[in-house]
Amino acid sequence: MSVGDVGERGLIDFFSTLIEGFPRAVLPFGDDAVGIPLGNDALIINTDMLVGRTDVPPGMSYWQAGRKAAVMNVSDVVAKGAKPVGAVFSLGFPRQTMRDEAGDLVRGLNAGCREYGFYYLGGDTNECSDLVVSGTVFGLVARNNVVSRKGARPGDVVAVTGPFGLTAMGFKILLENLSAEPKAKDLGLRAVYEPQARMREGLVLSERSLVSSCIDSSDGLAWSLHEISKMSGVGFIIDSIPVPKEVQTFARSYGLDHFDLALYGGEEFELLVTIPSVKWNRAVDSVKVVGGTLHQIGIVTGEKEPVLRLPNQAEKKIEPRGFEHFRK
Amino acid sequence: MSVGDVGERGLIDFFSTLIEGFPRAVLPFGDDAVGIPLGNDALIINTDMLVGRTDVPPGMSYWQAGRKAAVMNVSDVVAKGAKPVGAVFSLGFPRQTMRDEAGDLVRGLNAGCREYGFYYLGGDTNECSDLVVSGTVFGLVARNNVVSRKGARPGDVVAVTGPFGLTAMGFKILLENLSAEPKAKDLGLRAVYEPQARMREGLVLSERSLVSSCIDSSDGLAWSLHEISKMSGVGFIIDSIPVPKEVQTFARSYGLDHFDLALYGGEEFELLVTIPSVKWNRAVDSVKVVGGTLHQIGIVTGEKEPVLRLPNQAEKKIEPRGFEHFRK
Repeated sequence: MSVGDVGERGLIDFFSTLIEGFPRAVLPFGDDAVGIPLGNDALIINTDMLVGRTDVPPGMSYWQAGRKAAVMNVSDVVAKGAKPVGAVFSLGFPRQTMRDEAGDLVRGLNAGCREYGFYYLGGDTNECSDLVVSGTVFGLVARNNVVSRKGARPGDVVAVTGPFGLTAMGFKILLENLSAEPKAKDLGLRAVYEPQARMREGLVLSERSLVSSCIDSSDGLAWSLHEISKMSGVGFIIDSIPVPKEVQTFARSYGLDHFDLALYGGEEFELLVTIPSVKWNRAVDSVKVVGGTLHQIGIVTGEKEPVLRLPNQAEKKIEPRGFEHFRK
Repeated sequence: MSVGDVGERGLIDFFSTLIEGFPRAVLPFGDDAVGIPLGNDALIINTDMLVGRTDVPPGMSYWQAGRKAAVMNVSDVVAKGAKPVGAVFSLGFPRQTMRDEAGDLVRGLNAGCREYGFYYLGGDTNECSDLVVSGTVFGLVARNNVVSRKGARPGDVVAVTGPFGLTAMGFKILLENLSAEPKAKDLGLRAVYEPQARMREGLVLSERSLVSSCIDSSDGLAWSLHEISKMSGVGFIIDSIPVPKEVQTFARSYGLDHFDLALYGGEEFELLVTIPSVKWNRAVDSVKVVGGTLHQIGIVTGEKEPVLRLPNQAEKKIEPRGFEHFRK
């Protein structure tokens, strides 16, 4: 049986049986990032690899690819409540890559780090058949404020930090040659090429101990709901997902369901959080103060499964899958 | 101009001009690893990428490749005096890799971490054209005990923690089909397949503040001498390199100079250290207590250049090159 047959998620489960767990880990295996105690703080570390063949869509510049490699690592660190401090990047380039393309990638990495207030400390450079950018971003958080995927409780509010569906629309435009109105196209491509991590939101929510669980939604909203479901032992009723009107129009014009685009997309870096209901108003205000928004999308239940409940429609299970764009 | 034309070292110099330096770095850019202050300690981080096509020689098992990926990262961290605490690994597999091969690699990564007393905390899994193992190992050291490549002074003793030349012999056997006596072959292949990092030596020397500079010799002894030379602004007279007699016999049988094998090899993970002469005896004793050996190979000079001075031979410059086995 090859790794292609097993798939990424099956492999991760398999590997987890082969690795001796760190007894003092501050996050469970399989969370967004790993964490170890350092006095009263926790050091939170995330590593993510960007591979040109699968993670760099058509039209994305080297600069954008570098910046994205930084952002995707930041997103996981801030989802755990940690302030990023530094990063290292190991780079692999095909031999025929132009020196200035490689330089643009490095400039993008540097820009991504500086945008979130931390530094590109160093790394390693190699020859490789694919373009590979393997980043490790680490950050610090008070140990009591570490936020896990585990911790959601029935009755908590479930919320997100921004809209969903733009990236899925962008990928359909880029990879399936679907067309869209200029403004919609612009929004979709910008979401794909220049994603944002929700640092201010993640940090204020953890500093003030306002969330019971958090995950970044880079594997898609549906997949992220299932992850919290599995690790917290809860379910969700989702009855309101913020989907931009441009995505709704685009979906309608192709006979697609815009909730499918929002749920089963991926490569969106919004935070999905659960918040005890007594803290909800404070959470909304705190996020507003740092310039963000929290959208309630539903509530946490004891049912172990996320379901979608829309007006005038039968309740539907939310499936544990992501769009897995161009991974096939 | 392509990255292949520029070469790894030229690229690193180019990239260093594009990255904003971290103002509070505890190690200069271009050292073995990066370091940031954490209270009275420093967090030392190293990332190194192992690429199947260039870094996994014929006959190396997946388990050995995994273990090597851990060891090569450990070596840089302990060269800076830091005790490794944890590691994350981003993995890339070609789709046709067998699940059990991938499992053996992960077991090897875990074994490499545990062998040096730390943990494989987590990581990321991807599809890639090459086998790629991008590791990040981090460790802690008291800030005053951080050891840089910078700091060697004329008059210091220069020493290494073990013999040189075994790996170069191993690569000649594996890649150029040269033959050797069974015992020599065994030693050479073991050096290639199951390298050791010199953790106990690195830690005791830093804890007791016995070294003025240190580098791991993974790019070859000659290259490492040049790096200390450049970063410390010193030179070396090298007059004694420990070369195992099996390497001497092997070299003689092929008309090779065994000092060339020792100097221009690479993928050896001995530490190259400089030690103020007043501390030399204490350094030798300290390393002996932890089960290691220090071999004096020469002295540090003010001449900015490493030279080889052997009995009955004209003094020769040591060239700034490594063996760069199968990188071409």
